[in-house]
Amino acid sequence: MGVGLLGGSIGLALRNASPKTHIVGYGHRLESLKKASEINAIDAIETDAKKSVAGSDLVILCTPVGTFADLLAQIAPNLARGVIVTDVGSTKRSIVRMAEATLPATAKFIASHPLAGSEKRGVEFSRADLFADQLCILTPTKKTDAAALKRIESFWRSLGMRIASLTPEDHDRLLADVSHLPHLLAAALIAMQDDKGLDLCGKGFLDATRIAGGDGGLWRDIFIDNADNLKAAVGRLKKQLDTVEKMLDHKSVEALRVWLDVAAHRREKTLKKKLKEINPG
Amino acid sequence: MGVGLLGGSIGLALRNASPKTHIVGYGHRLESLKKASEINAIDAIETDAKKSVAGSDLVILCTPVGTFADLLAQIAPNLARGVIVTDVGSTKRSIVRMAEATLPATAKFIASHPLAGSEKRGVEFSRADLFADQLCILTPTKKTDAAALKRIESFWRSLGMRIASLTPEDHDRLLADVSHLPHLLAAALIAMQDDKGLDLCGKGFLDATRIAGGDGGLWRDIFIDNADNLKAAVGRLKKQLDTVEKMLDHKSVEALRVWLDVAAHRREKTLKKKLKEINPG
Repeated sequence: MGVGLLGGSIGLALRNASPKTHIVGYGHRLESLKKASEINAIDAIETDAKKSVAGSDLVILCTPVGTFADLLAQIAPNLARGVIVTDVGSTKRSIVRMAEATLPATAKFIASHPLAGSEKRGVEFSRADLFADQLCILTPTKKTDAAALKRIESFWRSLGMRIASLTPEDHDRLLADVSHLPHLLAAALIAMQDDKGLDLCGKGFLDATRIAGGDGGLWRDIFIDNADNLKAAVGRLKKQLDTVEKMLDHKSVEALRVWLDVAAHRREKTLKKKLKEINPG
Repeated sequence: MGVGLLGGSIGLALRNASPKTHIVGYGHRLESLKKASEINAIDAIETDAKKSVAGSDLVILCTPVGTFADLLAQIAPNLARGVIVTDVGSTKRSIVRMAEATLPATAKFIASHPLAGSEKRGVEFSRADLFADQLCILTPTKKTDAAALKRIESFWRSLGMRIASLTPEDHDRLLADVSHLPHLLAAALIAMQDDKGLDLCGKGFLDATRIAGGDGGLWRDIFIDNADNLKAAVGRLKKQLDTVEKMLDHKSVEALRVWLDVAAHRREKTLKKKLKEINPG
């Protein structure tokens, strides 16, 4: 449900992994649905959320986080018995809470967060390989059905993903640090520039702010939904800035060099680990 | 003088642009000098700064900003009449002040800042095309010799660069915003993470922090030399963070969306302008 970059890419990837699967695309903009159909990401178009899930054995919410409450309420009465419902949202506490409160007992909900995407918007940028070698975080709870969890793990693996498991609480806290805060910072870094500065920016600046090129509405939803964790992350970032300001005040040349070198070293280590995960050989 | 990534790349690029030029490499590490010679970035090796400039008609300082004072004092007595001295440092006020105070009247100093580089360290990563289509900022003053300025402009243009001109003060202020602060922020973003968060990071995080992969000593020098502007930039960034925190507190969904969209739009506009500068056609 939702045929943007993620929904469209799931359609294309699923088409390769499981050619016989019948894929229904739901959305409220007919234009996006038609584009999704043209690129062969979906088999059928549906603009009525309730109708779109009828008879499906897997429902994937690919709309912005802020739309989940409304969408779950709409589809809940029309879900087939034994259906598995999942999502691709960047926050997990609220969707888990809502799904467990709203969906019928005959539906099995597993929250998913595939760490894949792009700053580009729209179904026309969909790629069948968007998920290949990327990490998908699942956030099962005590109420999670074990068989459904295994099926969802297999589903994302069939699109090429690796699986990690976290509680919804740990997910939202860690992703605030490593994904939502970086986005906020990139936007703040652009916001504080005057035009003369932007004229002088180089490749480094453009790379550092690439993630800020995403859809404002989508990220607004994520920020609001994860506001407590995001504020805590901003607080910790500010403390780092205080530390550097003090080093600059006191001309602490050695401490500053160590601080910079440790950061460079940790990034290098993280990058090597990522590359090893993707190519274990 | 200084055969790291920048010095080595100037050697390689100059070799293409002006095959007959005799290039002397100065450094204190013989190993780096030998590597520079092996990749054909320099013709001769010299570990004595004073000797290395004897008879040269162009001297380019490619060592970290923190070494400039010492280096200028060493070479000043041995410069040929009419020599042009320039540098590739990321800060300009201090080098201009030092060069005008230290160099003899028979030497012409022009401060240069080619906006090119890499997070990789060492002469082995030198590339002849490192400067192609990139911007070189010159910061002439009232004391600058007009003929020497023209020669330096031609020199950087011969390596493929575009030229911009700023006062040393404007340069350091604008570069603090658009280059030094982004580096500081990327390092702070890594420093505030715990290891569990780093394990979950995706391509977005790695791109956003790529610039923090540079040499700690080199950036320490830049930060200390430009501490006043950098602290002002950190202050303005913190104000942006305060603004976002308030939007999160008040759940100002519309203001937050606008703030994010404006940032995305300004980045997009900047990127398009850069691409147009590189390919005016």
